[in-house]
Amino acid sequence: MIPFKLTDDLLKEIEQLIEDQKNSKLETLLGEVHYADVAEIIDELNEDQATYLIKLLDSDKTSDVLTELDEDVREAILNNLSAKEIAEELEELDTDDAADIIAELPEGIVQEVISEIEDREHAKDIVDLLRYDENSAGGLMAKELVKVRENWNVLTCVKEMRAQAENVTRVHSIYVVDDDDRLKGRLSLKDLLTTSTKSDISDVYIPKVDSVNVNEDPEEVAKIMSKYDLEAIPVVDEMGRLVGRITIDDIVDVIKEEAEKDYQLAAGISQDVEADDSIWDLTRARLPWLFLGLVGGVGAAAIMGGFEDMISNHAILFFFTPLIAAMAGNVGVQSSAIIVQGLANDDLKGSISNRLIKEMLLASLNGVILGAVLLLFTWAYNGHFLTALAISISLVVVIIVAGLIGTFIPLFLDKRGIDPAIATGPFITTSNDIFGILIYFWIAKVVLGI
Amino acid sequence: MIPFKLTDDLLKEIEQLIEDQKNSKLETLLGEVHYADVAEIIDELNEDQATYLIKLLDSDKTSDVLTELDEDVREAILNNLSAKEIAEELEELDTDDAADIIAELPEGIVQEVISEIEDREHAKDIVDLLRYDENSAGGLMAKELVKVRENWNVLTCVKEMRAQAENVTRVHSIYVVDDDDRLKGRLSLKDLLTTSTKSDISDVYIPKVDSVNVNEDPEEVAKIMSKYDLEAIPVVDEMGRLVGRITIDDIVDVIKEEAEKDYQLAAGISQDVEADDSIWDLTRARLPWLFLGLVGGVGAAAIMGGFEDMISNHAILFFFTPLIAAMAGNVGVQSSAIIVQGLANDDLKGSISNRLIKEMLLASLNGVILGAVLLLFTWAYNGHFLTALAISISLVVVIIVAGLIGTFIPLFLDKRGIDPAIATGPFITTSNDIFGILIYFWIAKVVLGI
Repeated sequence: MIPFKLTDDLLKEIEQLIEDQKNSKLETLLGEVHYADVAEIIDELNEDQATYLIKLLDSDKTSDVLTELDEDVREAILNNLSAKEIAEELEELDTDDAADIIAELPEGIVQEVISEIEDREHAKDIVDLLRYDENSAGGLMAKELVKVRENWNVLTCVKEMRAQAENVTRVHSIYVVDDDDRLKGRLSLKDLLTTSTKSDISDVYIPKVDSVNVNEDPEEVAKIMSKYDLEAIPVVDEMGRLVGRITIDDIVDVIKEEAEKDYQLAAGISQDVEADDSIWDLTRARLPWLFLGLVGGVGAAAIMGGFEDMISNHAILFFFTPLIAAMAGNVGVQSSAIIVQGLANDDLKGSISNRLIKEMLLASLNGVILGAVLLLFTWAYNGHFLTALAISISLVVVIIVAGLIGTFIPLFLDKRGIDPAIATGPFITTSNDIFGILIYFWIAKVVLGI
Repeated sequence: MIPFKLTDDLLKEIEQLIEDQKNSKLETLLGEVHYADVAEIIDELNEDQATYLIKLLDSDKTSDVLTELDEDVREAILNNLSAKEIAEELEELDTDDAADIIAELPEGIVQEVISEIEDREHAKDIVDLLRYDENSAGGLMAKELVKVRENWNVLTCVKEMRAQAENVTRVHSIYVVDDDDRLKGRLSLKDLLTTSTKSDISDVYIPKVDSVNVNEDPEEVAKIMSKYDLEAIPVVDEMGRLVGRITIDDIVDVIKEEAEKDYQLAAGISQDVEADDSIWDLTRARLPWLFLGLVGGVGAAAIMGGFEDMISNHAILFFFTPLIAAMAGNVGVQSSAIIVQGLANDDLKGSISNRLIKEMLLASLNGVILGAVLLLFTWAYNGHFLTALAISISLVVVIIVAGLIGTFIPLFLDKRGIDPAIATGPFITTSNDIFGILIYFWIAKVVLGI
């Protein structure tokens, strides 16, 4: 397989074909291209060109293309389509993707779009899905699944299943329900192929089936599916009735988005931005944390101003403030990152106080090693042992305090139900800068007997 | 579904049952527990208890348990098992998991273990897999798949498939090969269920099938599978022959590991550590970056020492060094994180110089806003306009330089084939600290006319 690569030449060719309205050439050229790659092309075109292509190509392809586009590009294109045209796209999509697109449409047009969907069953399923919170299993699930009744036999089941499977891209499991639609178990396609057609479903199905509640948090669903290596999981409502199914491809997206968000938070970028976003979007994502850093720096400067009387005799103390601040920040980020990741993976056992004791030992070990190195260096460089000692002792204490803050804050946020990932990066760095410098000058004062 | 929760009480009960050798009670208790949960339990037991449980329970469960254990726990248990016992576990596993376990065994025992595997076909497949680099598609794939020849008819195909499917947990696709085993296309189970049994396979299969080469990088495989929403992908060798299959659950692990690694690098943690690792492991993962920070801090101190003559008249300049260092670090981490993420997602278009121009504009915008705020504040606080101006102009320049360094380094590393993720975190912070402070004092000198 040669991976698709969007070249400038290809892009120019397509732009030229659009300008010349060479429709059949465009159809042939793009007919062989996977929808995910067509989306990549369209993301690079201007609004008019993009709309032209979407209108030109078959909606069984363009519907999938739409789901893969950047949100702003999709919004611009949908604005140029009539309610009927949008409905035609939705007709081709699985209910979960269709519902996601409808949720992005301006309110005024939603009703018209839904009324234009010809398959009324499909429209009903989409409307059903609109009711669920985007941030829940219900908001993630699709209505497409294959279900059979426990009192059928295998033959009926195969017949029914063939009919249902028409609308389901990947069957995975066949779910077995009772007369009230309550989930009872599952059957695999493989079982169905290898069982006598006269058997009753109730005799052959597997009564043990993992499921999640419609209200479950998507991250929790991702954890369950990846822990138990599931490729699809049925979703049940409060009465245990089968209402939908979540497939692994949606979960891959959840995992990737979650990881990107944590990474961005750790790097001090708020909101979900990409390198190709506008300078304005990027500024809005970056400026808040930089502003926090500025406030922290001003705080540090103010603290140092309070110790100004030491500057004439102990100028060297001031030279080491960036080192102290940097070490406080680094240790804080390291310890908070480990806690954040442990919380995300659900593998933190034991109490908060045990964590803090462990971090204290760990930070002490690191601190003493680094402090000893710094002591030797500063002593050799400056020749004044007591000053060198003051700086090094401060470093050890600062590292321990920074480690404890870095450990405590994410655990505390998590207990309060706040995403601990916000605790890494600039937040921890900034608070540790200030605490670090304050502790540093206090200890220096004591050691030097000022 | 009530998620499994490992409580202290349950753990104590199991430990007691092991001590009392209540085998049948243990079997009943753990029989209903999913292997991933049994692994969670065993990770908490001591070596003897863990080995006891692995020997006690059925190998169709314990084999899966073994694949889920922490590496050091698994190693300790396998050390206590005979070659025959290990072979029994491998017998139950898919070839990819079995090969992973064999790769971890001490060399001396490998041959004996393989010779004890009763299913010789299975043993041969495992040995085949041992030849592939762990960090390639070949190292990730399993030999379990269902393949049919293009010149068969559907009936033969169903018969053959039933036999082959015995050993394949999830069928996903049926791959169609020619007489030389070259991959020609695919068939879905659904197609097979809905096609007349007299049709020829060559008439019904889909000739378009995505595949990857055995030498492909796992991250690249993950990108392809997640971009094209694939749940399994066939792996072909240099002659186009079908040699294995990679399933989405392995890819989920690749994506998660990659994300964790990038996150840890950004947070200044080398190696793959967890919160529950020993203090010694955690120190080894954290100390190198802290040491780098220490060197950077000493460098910054040395630079400030070079400007010591300014300290009597312009003490305030020294108070702002932590702010300058922090801002340089924050901006550098932000811009490098955006580039690293863009590279990881393959959505960076355009040349390096365009990226740098964009970052310069962006950093200038951020810098001017933050510089103006700082100017007003410092002027009000200190009353000396020129000093305030010097500090603010420096801040703007430092932010721009830090942004450019943060953008350039990951792009440069990537061009050189080095993982750009190492460029975020302490590496960028430390170099930007030093550059930042150097630039700061230079500019201050010029503006203040010293």
